Amino acid sequence: MIVVMKPEARSREISEVIARIESDGYRAHLSQGEQHTIIGLVGESPTPLREEHYSSMGGVQKVVRISAPYKLASRHFHPLDTRIPLNGSQMGDEKILVIAGPCSVESREQIIEMACMMKEAGATALRGGAFKPRTSPYSFQGHGEKGLQWLAEARERSGLPVVTEVMDTAQVEMVCQYADVLQIGARNMQNFSLLNRVGETQRAVLLKRGMSSTVEDLLMSAEYVLANGNKRVMLCERGIRTFEKATRNTFDVNAIPVLKALTHLPVIADPSHGTGYSEYVTPIARAAIAAGADGLIVEVHPSPEKAYSDGRQSLKPEQFKEMMEQVRRVADAVGRKA
Amino acid sequence: MIVVMKPEARSREISEVIARIESDGYRAHLSQGEQHTIIGLVGESPTPLREEHYSSMGGVQKVVRISAPYKLASRHFHPLDTRIPLNGSQMGDEKILVIAGPCSVESREQIIEMACMMKEAGATALRGGAFKPRTSPYSFQGHGEKGLQWLAEARERSGLPVVTEVMDTAQVEMVCQYADVLQIGARNMQNFSLLNRVGETQRAVLLKRGMSSTVEDLLMSAEYVLANGNKRVMLCERGIRTFEKATRNTFDVNAIPVLKALTHLPVIADPSHGTGYSEYVTPIARAAIAAGADGLIVEVHPSPEKAYSDGRQSLKPEQFKEMMEQVRRVADAVGRKA
Amino acid sequence: MIVVMKPEARSREISEVIARIESDGYRAHLSQGEQHTIIGLVGESPTPLREEHYSSMGGVQKVVRISAPYKLASRHFHPLDTRIPLNGSQMGDEKILVIAGPCSVESREQIIEMACMMKEAGATALRGGAFKPRTSPYSFQGHGEKGLQWLAEARERSGLPVVTEVMDTAQVEMVCQYADVLQIGARNMQNFSLLNRVGETQRAVLLKRGMSSTVEDLLMSAEYVLANGNKRVMLCERGIRTFEKATRNTFDVNAIPVLKALTHLPVIADPSHGTGYSEYVTPIARAAIAAGADGLIVEVHPSPEKAYSDGRQSLKPEQFKEMMEQVRRVADAVGRKA
Amino acid sequence: MIVVMKPEARSREISEVIARIESDGYRAHLSQGEQHTIIGLVGESPTPLREEHYSSMGGVQKVVRISAPYKLASRHFHPLDTRIPLNGSQMGDEKILVIAGPCSVESREQIIEMACMMKEAGATALRGGAFKPRTSPYSFQGHGEKGLQWLAEARERSGLPVVTEVMDTAQVEMVCQYADVLQIGARNMQNFSLLNRVGETQRAVLLKRGMSSTVEDLLMSAEYVLANGNKRVMLCERGIRTFEKATRNTFDVNAIPVLKALTHLPVIADPSHGTGYSEYVTPIARAAIAAGADGLIVEVHPSPEKAYSDGRQSLKPEQFKEMMEQVRRVADAVGRKA
Repeated sequence: MIVVMKPEARSREISEVIARIESDGYRAHLSQGEQHTIIGLVGESPTPLREEHYSSMGGVQKVVRISAPYKLASRHFHPLDTRIPLNGSQMGDEKILVIAGPCSVESREQIIEMACMMKEAGATALRGGAFKPRTSPYSFQGHGEKGLQWLAEARERSGLPVVTEVMDTAQVEMVCQYADVLQIGARNMQNFSLLNRVGETQRAVLLKRGMSSTVEDLLMSAEYVLANGNKRVMLCERGIRTFEKATRNTFDVNAIPVLKALTHLPVIADPSHGTGYSEYVTPIARAAIAAGADGLIVEVHPSPEKAYSDGRQSLKPEQFKEMMEQVRRVADAVGRKA
Repeated sequence: MIVVMKPEARSREISEVIARIESDGYRAHLSQGEQHTIIGLVGESPTPLREEHYSSMGGVQKVVRISAPYKLASRHFHPLDTRIPLNGSQMGDEKILVIAGPCSVESREQIIEMACMMKEAGATALRGGAFKPRTSPYSFQGHGEKGLQWLAEARERSGLPVVTEVMDTAQVEMVCQYADVLQIGARNMQNFSLLNRVGETQRAVLLKRGMSSTVEDLLMSAEYVLANGNKRVMLCERGIRTFEKATRNTFDVNAIPVLKALTHLPVIADPSHGTGYSEYVTPIARAAIAAGADGLIVEVHPSPEKAYSDGRQSLKPEQFKEMMEQVRRVADAVGRKA
Repeated sequence: MIVVMKPEARSREISEVIARIESDGYRAHLSQGEQHTIIGLVGESPTPLREEHYSSMGGVQKVVRISAPYKLASRHFHPLDTRIPLNGSQMGDEKILVIAGPCSVESREQIIEMACMMKEAGATALRGGAFKPRTSPYSFQGHGEKGLQWLAEARERSGLPVVTEVMDTAQVEMVCQYADVLQIGARNMQNFSLLNRVGETQRAVLLKRGMSSTVEDLLMSAEYVLANGNKRVMLCERGIRTFEKATRNTFDVNAIPVLKALTHLPVIADPSHGTGYSEYVTPIARAAIAAGADGLIVEVHPSPEKAYSDGRQSLKPEQFKEMMEQVRRVADAVGRKA
Repeated sequence: MIVVMKPEARSREISEVIARIESDGYRAHLSQGEQHTIIGLVGESPTPLREEHYSSMGGVQKVVRISAPYKLASRHFHPLDTRIPLNGSQMGDEKILVIAGPCSVESREQIIEMACMMKEAGATALRGGAFKPRTSPYSFQGHGEKGLQWLAEARERSGLPVVTEVMDTAQVEMVCQYADVLQIGARNMQNFSLLNRVGETQRAVLLKRGMSSTVEDLLMSAEYVLANGNKRVMLCERGIRTFEKATRNTFDVNAIPVLKALTHLPVIADPSHGTGYSEYVTPIARAAIAAGADGLIVEVHPSPEKAYSDGRQSLKPEQFKEMMEQVRRVADAVGRKA
């Protein structure tokens, strides 16, 4: 950390900063510029550094953090890619993970039928929401535990592991009984109580980026899960909120190579929420794989116009099949398998 | 709702849209333009309208919603301003509500001392966090129930009602035992489980706008609380996330008159989070009141450089006093009292 | 266009809207809903429709535009892809256009050497700025006409056509003497005087998207050039400004399939400005081609740390060569050639 | 400037950075931390510092700028508020400047009538566009020089100085013959050719913030004008582009106190573009003055529904009068006059 003093800072103020650094257990390293005095913090100490403590001291212009604020999620401390065991294979290896299925679990028949179709089309996991976060209290909120039971049945029939959302600490235990992967939705990315709770389980977690969260915020939320002892975290880029309204969200394809550089955790792309329109899902799925993503999560529905939610962005099963073929060719071109 | 068909839509597709409208219990009203056929939905029906159902049908270009998606929060259905009883007065009347105090409850002595100082300086409620949502798992997370007890003691001593954050459904019952107003933080604005849960209480709720939430999203989240039977909701503008980094957030002052037009609920402004720097808090507090806000929530700390959190944006008690004087003059100028 | 009246609109206000529609030469088509009266404008008229005229009339809640505001740029009116002749080939066909070179033309030797290297590595056009828009008046502003002459010499030696920026109407004639493609920079995307002026030439135009411009704004700016009689417009996605600061801009990969759907004009991607860091250029170049872009524009410099501008995002020549190989494989996978 | 090396930087890379610092004429000051080596640049040199040169060197993690990149615009180098003589008074003193008038000059009669009405209602300058930047090539583009002549006539009749937009270097000389203040529109804020050209005049300049420009970008554009020798620059906050669509732009009220802290130049607020809706103009005008703005620029039209442009955000003359009364009370409350 570096503390930059204002040009008009008094020497008393500089001394106070130095005294604080020392009382926090670090050494202070002074550079006197023409305009600014700059004070570096050197050494190690059990006292965690709080930028704010220094930034609100008298005479301080700004505080510059040097090291990343996350540790367990950082590639610096853990250079090798994390692999997550899932259904006998290793998520994060050469093979692309493709999670597909309807936005909501709508009925027992629907989810079982979809699971088998997805499996046949080449998906490697099944998605489906039993608890649905909806903007409106008047929209369909999911079938709850019944939906989870149907998902488990669909897994048995299709052999596909199940990815499903958990919205509240009180649901975690129940969802763990049925799901292979716990999904944390974008709106809950900074629900820290929930992050702590899923961190206490050993179930794999799919952590979706919040729509106004930076890449660093996402890694800090991953850090919550990791710090609680659960190392099985996959990150998911699903589009951020910008001024552009031609698509539902702006899929931040840059985040894929940025995350691959900063962290060892696998990165999944969600072209369905990332665009909001079924006609753009396939090109963005191709782009995500070309950019280096380790997997995809895609919404598929047999009759999108009848879907309980997100119909506009759902592929039909035959469109999903076509997407898989195109994705396979791009995966080959970048040395992966799909 | 209006369904706009693509120029190339076939008549079969138009008929399917009409059939669906009728099966949903509405009447279809057709306008044939030069390029586009436009179909209006007329009448009332118990079936709630789902834009997506129509937008994913064949031949449909777009669906335009006409009515607001919220009802209980809408000024159209409830023209008179909502007043919320708080400590013997009516929040939302001529008098500005001023909630002040430290970001975190740090100790029993601190919060009691601050409560008395805030009261004396003209605050009408006390803030202080016992459960703290922090970006980093390594930051101070709050004193929990002990903090709530200290807050209750501070209320007794100062006479100020207590506003404090609740982060998880599992905490609601406990927080209700101590708090006068339940604060829902920006990161939990779309934690729908939590919204449902606080909606089941009769405690006043201070709902902070999410940093990437539109005004409409905020009203939809308020609708969750209202729809559960709790009518005591105050909305809080606390800055949104934009590309500008000269301030911590971009305080959306426009949201104040926009909310006053769209809803009957009181609107509070948070110039501390809205700017992130103590030197900008007072001018933005003045601006918020000038724009028509019904209240302010402000962070104050006796020694900001020692604060456990948010020190950089905390006023010192004497600065808060000065802010109150300036706010009072602006309140007078717009026909309010502070 | 559709005019939605407020629930409380009076019948006099409705009559005034209808009268205006008729005096503008259109027919009014009325739908009476439970809450809202909706008035459609039907027919054709020489009077262009101005949303604002209606939106500021009494009793009007909102005005919804149905047709796109651009015509010449629209795929609806011009379904076939535009091809732009460039150096004997047809930009916009199966073959990917790859424009490469330094950000600024720094010296005669530099640009000639770079041109030959780019040609050898597989580039199909040469970029280099002689007029440089710089945020600071104290930064290098380009070599001006001398730079253009060097570019022309580099074209002669390498056989690569030249793409270079024009910043002001007064420069257009001069730049046309040397350049094959006139680049309009992001900061000038809505410099309408300049758009009109380049529209009067027959030189190909590379129009970069402004950093806060929507896809529709970009198409409206293209419409300026097209409406002046110049049909040779290529659009360029180069990243938009968002809250994310891990990269210089957020490359909006969604814009590629969206533009391919809305317009017949070719779409180029700029992964250099789109990311701002050389290490992310290659993955984003791959992603852009996978998403359907017709070309790339990439900054390359022999010693990025000595570049007069944009060194941080410049590839070294050997990195560009490697990028070309990877891009070629992805192009193959999506049925293109690079 | 501070250069932060990567943890894995080699000592050769550190030496190269130091060598470069010295060859640029500065002294290098080294701090060895546990993870990072940090190198400060100390001293003065005629070589301007280029962050990019260092950031693209081997082993460098990031470069942190300490001083602001603008000098002439900085309050640090010019602590006293700039006053700009305008029509016998001093813009920037206690008295609020209120620029009012129609978006476009529509006819001789209109602008003369409006000028007299604005004067009577308390405006201190007249606005009106003769050259209009319009998103669509098919919209009204202004009356050009004829419009300027009418503006000059309106000035003569009303005594109000004239503020009008200049869009291109080729128009500057002509506009200077008629206008008291040259307005640079938001879309031209980074049209550096135009900034240079108006910098060569001695006419006052009203520089509007671009819709995706940071406060620092705005100050850098002001620096262009100042560096050319024209010291009469006023800055204008007119709203930025964000995800929120309830208003046309998001008025960044924070920018007012931020700019007052960073620069000595006067700050004007544009609540018309800042909101886009006439009903929100007055509350935001009040808020801007409460936040410390030195002036307002407001669109007024006798019949907004007939305005050639921007009718939706135009006040009627009687609404403007009412706005002036409210603004006057707020100005009093913050120690200003309107």
